[in-house]
Amino acid sequence: MGQLQDLPRNEAGLRTALGILAQRFGPRLETAPAMRTQHGHTTTWLRNQPPDAVIFTRTTGEVQDVMRICATHQVPVIPFGAGTSLEGHVNAPAGGISVDFSRMDRVLAVHPEDMDVVLQPGVTRKALNTHLRDTGLFFPIDPGADASLGGMAATNASGTNAVRYGTMKDNVLALKAVLPSGEVLKTAARARKTSAGYDLTRLMVGSEGTLGLITELTLRLHGIPEAVSAATCSFPTVKAACQTVIATIQYGVPVARIELLDALSVRAINAYSRLSLPETPLLLVEFHGPPAGVAAQAETFGEIAAGFEGHGFMSTTHKEDRNRLWQARHDAYWASLQLRPGARGVSTDVCVPVSRLADCVTAAQEKTAEMGFVAPIVGHVGDGNFHVLLLIDMDAPKEIAKADAFVGWLNDLAISMDGTCTGEHGIGQGKAPYLVKELGPVGPSAMAAIKAALDPMNLLNPGKLGLP
Amino acid sequence: MGQLQDLPRNEAGLRTALGILAQRFGPRLETAPAMRTQHGHTTTWLRNQPPDAVIFTRTTGEVQDVMRICATHQVPVIPFGAGTSLEGHVNAPAGGISVDFSRMDRVLAVHPEDMDVVLQPGVTRKALNTHLRDTGLFFPIDPGADASLGGMAATNASGTNAVRYGTMKDNVLALKAVLPSGEVLKTAARARKTSAGYDLTRLMVGSEGTLGLITELTLRLHGIPEAVSAATCSFPTVKAACQTVIATIQYGVPVARIELLDALSVRAINAYSRLSLPETPLLLVEFHGPPAGVAAQAETFGEIAAGFEGHGFMSTTHKEDRNRLWQARHDAYWASLQLRPGARGVSTDVCVPVSRLADCVTAAQEKTAEMGFVAPIVGHVGDGNFHVLLLIDMDAPKEIAKADAFVGWLNDLAISMDGTCTGEHGIGQGKAPYLVKELGPVGPSAMAAIKAALDPMNLLNPGKLGLP
Repeated sequence: MGQLQDLPRNEAGLRTALGILAQRFGPRLETAPAMRTQHGHTTTWLRNQPPDAVIFTRTTGEVQDVMRICATHQVPVIPFGAGTSLEGHVNAPAGGISVDFSRMDRVLAVHPEDMDVVLQPGVTRKALNTHLRDTGLFFPIDPGADASLGGMAATNASGTNAVRYGTMKDNVLALKAVLPSGEVLKTAARARKTSAGYDLTRLMVGSEGTLGLITELTLRLHGIPEAVSAATCSFPTVKAACQTVIATIQYGVPVARIELLDALSVRAINAYSRLSLPETPLLLVEFHGPPAGVAAQAETFGEIAAGFEGHGFMSTTHKEDRNRLWQARHDAYWASLQLRPGARGVSTDVCVPVSRLADCVTAAQEKTAEMGFVAPIVGHVGDGNFHVLLLIDMDAPKEIAKADAFVGWLNDLAISMDGTCTGEHGIGQGKAPYLVKELGPVGPSAMAAIKAALDPMNLLNPGKLGLP
Repeated sequence: MGQLQDLPRNEAGLRTALGILAQRFGPRLETAPAMRTQHGHTTTWLRNQPPDAVIFTRTTGEVQDVMRICATHQVPVIPFGAGTSLEGHVNAPAGGISVDFSRMDRVLAVHPEDMDVVLQPGVTRKALNTHLRDTGLFFPIDPGADASLGGMAATNASGTNAVRYGTMKDNVLALKAVLPSGEVLKTAARARKTSAGYDLTRLMVGSEGTLGLITELTLRLHGIPEAVSAATCSFPTVKAACQTVIATIQYGVPVARIELLDALSVRAINAYSRLSLPETPLLLVEFHGPPAGVAAQAETFGEIAAGFEGHGFMSTTHKEDRNRLWQARHDAYWASLQLRPGARGVSTDVCVPVSRLADCVTAAQEKTAEMGFVAPIVGHVGDGNFHVLLLIDMDAPKEIAKADAFVGWLNDLAISMDGTCTGEHGIGQGKAPYLVKELGPVGPSAMAAIKAALDPMNLLNPGKLGLP
């Protein structure tokens, strides 16, 4: 943690490229230290490695110009969306140019009959849903932060409702990206299905800016559900909660969200929001569909939960009551930080087969207790994905080292359960050592070969994904 | 059509490799002409280009041995599943060794709690569902033929229920594949979500055997629906039927299948099955869910259809009645062939945004009439994917040339509508010229670069996907 190495810098190339780019972009090339720091740092806990300059591009043509100038002088290019990534994705370990897409924020076309939208990568998910508000359609993926859709595609973001609507992988129909050559790649047509060649769309989604600079996205949209129901239920143990999750999904109840808060998270929320929830594991569930359906689904969930010692079951279809029920989940992050005022939250991101989830969460709780951490847990448990929020004094090197050890221990545990070190945050810089543990050496070698084929000079976002 | 070129053969390497492989595999290396022809030809209408030998491998280790021996002597390797592909995927234009996976047909592990299965690639979809029959789970993807799951992954198969359950892309969680180096690639863990590096799973799915030999698959399973309802409705025009499809999906009615038969298909079925359906466009719909839900959904569909001049609406939840309603769809292929006894059926496979579907289908009908074809149409219309079945006398070169012209015309039309030349059959040999038209030159160049990176000697299934 914080032990990031810098990579070799091409000082001569950087000087030349900066001069040319300054002429080309004028004041939209920014080199003030605060701007540079902000574009490296973002929300990650990793050490800041700022780029040499930031350019706010406005068109695909401008992105191509930046790419071509940087390629000519062998200077790294790092794409930047909203800066909400968590694993050092926008750091610049070899320096270079941060391309900020926030001004490429136009929705280009909404196709209501096809239920898709074409847009620029700087549009944020909230801005998109505001734009769509009169169409009866919405874009469901919700990673929490108001991330840019380009960034969400680059990291394969997901979040609370992936159990129903999938991840970015499932919702990007096609994209355009500027390659290191400066050419614009079109990955697919706008049809909902295609078997036309290698799936370049999904290769780019999750590639963390290492293969191309996304300049346009075509996204699937979904109908705003006619009705929504919400339910909560407390459980004596994490295992009982997880058994309820498994049974609910096996039974075919179409949950839209199913979230776990562990006892410590509930305690944090009680303190933060002056509630009096039982301080035991809590499941929060949401259903989307026709009015009769969602009420029945919530009741079915309640019956299943009762079979696993669930208690305090509540459900509602009324919006205000739903918001009240889910308040605990919405407040979880800020409430958790209050468990240790002044501390930073460092989030893990393992994802395991659901059958192993209770074991993995319980082991993580025991380990954090043993190591003396205050570390509440929330999980997107329908997918087997959960986050341990380690509350760390970032001025205490021993704590940081201990957190590093815990993260490694947890990643190893998840991998031993046939799980992954990252369900949704991505590899970035922070998770690079675990990719080989997870896949063995062949997969990462194949990734490196693909990277070298598409970016032979290693210009795009170097030092990420365990790549050079 | 039938104008396929042979590629240069490495005669010396082939002789040496065949000798070594004969020693290694004994009678499981087969070189009889009938066996070789069968492994090149399959169900495609393209000219047969048989491999030099066929090996029935039984283990991943054996596949590695074949790959290493062939790599040493620079001999092509072509993976073979059940031989039901449609675009010349298993032809051997440069000769080489066909690896037949039909004896690698074991289900390795079913995980009911995780709703997934690990299996060898030779398991067919029907065999898998037979294996799963006591679990309450099923694998939904249904391309019609009883294809092998390895082949379905390699071509990104889908079919009638993709509108609800997705394609192979959405249902392969992870896979293992032997690379040209002989190493075994593991693409992902068994977790339901991952953001761990490039999506090698989806790169391999749809790669048509050009990047690796799939030796193990982890597939998502789904709960067998508690109830199923079916409905059919006739329409005065294709446009009215397509408007019904769009409105049904926009309204959020969760169709599991929604299929279009055009008037000619209905006429064929009336003759074949002695039915008296109105000889106008027909939609067949299926819903999966709880009993109350599916009945209501069918009724909602009926109401929407009535708003677009639908007539003769029928729906049922009883199994026998459902089968009777859907009989028309199940018989469509064989019934269509009877429209011109002795003819071969050549199937197109374009997929367009649903908003353009009526225009595309109607234009195709007009064009086939103008060109004098007997050519019924069926479509997976929820996805915008449809098949024109050209009934061709394969002994009449003029007809074949005309069919070739029609296929090209239709692919160009779909591409002009922001659609694809292949929704589910794949590129293989037959569609290679259209990939550049669809994506422009950059995408195919990127595919070629990836191919060269992972298979530098071009050993795996050469001459497919528009690659060398």
